[in-house]
Amino acid sequence: MDVIDIIVAKRDGAELAPDQIDWVIGAYARGEVPDEQMAALCMAIVWRGMTAAEVSRWTEAMLRSGERLDFSDLGRPTTDKHSTGGVGDKITLALTPAVAACGAAVPQLSGRGLGHTGGTLDKLESIPGWRASLTPGEMRGVLRDVGAVVCAAGPGLAPADRRLYALRDVTGTVESIPLIASSIMSKKLAEGTGALVLDVKVGSGAFMRDTASARELARTMVGIGRDHGVGTVALLTAMEAPLGRAVGNALEVAEAVEVLAGGGPEDVVELTVTLAREMLAAAGLPGAKDPADALRDGSAMDVWRRMVAAQGGDPDAPLPVAAERRQVLAAESGLLTRLDARAVGLAAWRLGAGRARKEDPVVPGAGVTLHVKPGEEVRAGAPLFTLHADDPRRFDHAAQALERAYEIDGGYDPLPLVIDRIDG
Amino acid sequence: MDVIDIIVAKRDGAELAPDQIDWVIGAYARGEVPDEQMAALCMAIVWRGMTAAEVSRWTEAMLRSGERLDFSDLGRPTTDKHSTGGVGDKITLALTPAVAACGAAVPQLSGRGLGHTGGTLDKLESIPGWRASLTPGEMRGVLRDVGAVVCAAGPGLAPADRRLYALRDVTGTVESIPLIASSIMSKKLAEGTGALVLDVKVGSGAFMRDTASARELARTMVGIGRDHGVGTVALLTAMEAPLGRAVGNALEVAEAVEVLAGGGPEDVVELTVTLAREMLAAAGLPGAKDPADALRDGSAMDVWRRMVAAQGGDPDAPLPVAAERRQVLAAESGLLTRLDARAVGLAAWRLGAGRARKEDPVVPGAGVTLHVKPGEEVRAGAPLFTLHADDPRRFDHAAQALERAYEIDGGYDPLPLVIDRIDG
Repeated sequence: MDVIDIIVAKRDGAELAPDQIDWVIGAYARGEVPDEQMAALCMAIVWRGMTAAEVSRWTEAMLRSGERLDFSDLGRPTTDKHSTGGVGDKITLALTPAVAACGAAVPQLSGRGLGHTGGTLDKLESIPGWRASLTPGEMRGVLRDVGAVVCAAGPGLAPADRRLYALRDVTGTVESIPLIASSIMSKKLAEGTGALVLDVKVGSGAFMRDTASARELARTMVGIGRDHGVGTVALLTAMEAPLGRAVGNALEVAEAVEVLAGGGPEDVVELTVTLAREMLAAAGLPGAKDPADALRDGSAMDVWRRMVAAQGGDPDAPLPVAAERRQVLAAESGLLTRLDARAVGLAAWRLGAGRARKEDPVVPGAGVTLHVKPGEEVRAGAPLFTLHADDPRRFDHAAQALERAYEIDGGYDPLPLVIDRIDG
Repeated sequence: MDVIDIIVAKRDGAELAPDQIDWVIGAYARGEVPDEQMAALCMAIVWRGMTAAEVSRWTEAMLRSGERLDFSDLGRPTTDKHSTGGVGDKITLALTPAVAACGAAVPQLSGRGLGHTGGTLDKLESIPGWRASLTPGEMRGVLRDVGAVVCAAGPGLAPADRRLYALRDVTGTVESIPLIASSIMSKKLAEGTGALVLDVKVGSGAFMRDTASARELARTMVGIGRDHGVGTVALLTAMEAPLGRAVGNALEVAEAVEVLAGGGPEDVVELTVTLAREMLAAAGLPGAKDPADALRDGSAMDVWRRMVAAQGGDPDAPLPVAAERRQVLAAESGLLTRLDARAVGLAAWRLGAGRARKEDPVVPGAGVTLHVKPGEEVRAGAPLFTLHADDPRRFDHAAQALERAYEIDGGYDPLPLVIDRIDG
């Protein structure tokens, strides 16, 4: 098998054969195909795309490059959720314990953030003592004892994807629906979940800016799940404005704890409950306890506290707070009709909540608090945002990102929170 | 300057800015941009192409990555030819001395062969003692004393192209007219010639199979030459059948010596004289001695002998001969109407005349002799080809390549040898 033939075939628009895909992914994972050849192949895939058969095989090959966890002996069905990432998206934090409280087990491998959207692990790491890295045995133990675990993927899971993801990040080849879909699905299939619900974000704060691309990504991933015998459903959800009122790691944990205490912002609660019901149905538990009840009666909070403690975290410890705060005030009165998620994400990133390079640390207390959400009234001189940072020199640059991020008394025609639902 | 921005811009179809091109080529030549990023950029260029302004700047940046030779103090104008490569293309060997015999100086940097077309240096290296590697000082000395020099490009000339060419070879990014044109022209401009004639081959044995692509390549290169103040003319010439009757290193040197002695195959003589006249005209010597006379009166042969000797070769030494020969006979009688250049090149390659990898040696005496050329009559049982190899086990495989390589009494409508002429 010759890698140049494979690159040239894709470059010229051909469909790759199953054995070509198996070989090139395996050889890349073993280090026998160098990065420059895989980079050229990835750019050819950005150009020419992949058929459903190709993308399913590509995912399978990445999955087979490593181990696949198996939780079929747990005694209860497993189910998981993956979000393509949005600003203020702390849904996993309350969702995972809520679903566990209703009878399913949630084995979630999660990631760190890069760019304007935060990563679930970064958020959880703002809890004093909590650690993301578990051995497969520890992960299984937490899942068995608590019913839910959120941790980092070990190096043995889909190692081909790990190497490929890092390569795509530096070669301008991230923006390819088949490559995005196979990357997500190879990791989710490797973690051994029995069912999967995908939250595909659409809008200014999402990776997919338009509904058509988001729907294509959702369909591609649902097809891969079906081809691998994992019941998969996707919801397309709105990401024009941030989710909730908190953007930044510790700020989002605090908001998730509000939701677990039966309160919290309406949109966060609605999306948490909707996704939890989908996860339970996908797991084959349609008549289980309702997750809305689990949030109200404290059972989800109980799972949360045990889940945090099982990974070394202290659920009662105060969360980190940024050293400095600054308010951004409204210049006029009226109805807030637009609040751009990407701009808010960028502001939080500039305050220290995100990282520019993988090896950068994040500032746990940094971020943005929203005092007004779209559809609410604002008064001239009242606070619109509070900025949180350890270094006050960051405020001006962050505030700049927010200058054209909102509109008062413009047209108001918001998308529904759940735009569409795609199943097999 | 961020290389990912540059890759993404080209991927999305934008025209790169001059400072982006300068930076990315310079950083790649210095080793600051890694191969995987350049491979992705090259594939994006294969996809999106380059404008005339981009390709000229790209060439300029590659040229500036190294030194540029200067022969303006030689006392006579310099002129050179470059061929895009064909089967049996030994034109340089007689052409260079013929042009020098008519008053211009020819500073030719040439290459080795890879695949089914041979390299000029491989051919010359079949002359006992001849060496391709000269220092810049030695090159200048031979050029001054003899008027013509054919040697390998040193590592200081267009080093960015050297690295890029090796990368494109393994990443499926060879097939891009702007990348091909800038690679050729950066080397030719670096060698310091004052005028340039391009022999762009078209047909089954050429890199460009159709006239439209060949014309586009020719126009792109002529444009680059004009942008750099080097008078450049391109001829599109036919490469459906091999040039001459000899294919293989020492076999082609012997045929070139026949031409220098005033004989040789008609097509080789015609193309040599046509290109030589173009080179003299491009050098500003339109009234110089006619190259056809230089071939007839022995003055070109005299330059040839001095040129070979100046690089350590013995012009009187017998050329290497292959240890074994086998004839391929015609099965029927009639007019030979087609003889496929690529198949003959492949047969010669299988006999040992070419290399599969850059580090492979070539067999100097190996190759194919053609007894009949298209337009000539053949008798059943008479020889069509003689195969030459050191290892007789290679004959069957080579003969297979020739089985469907020719046609007798088919349609006969040959292209003219010179199909088109393109100047600034």
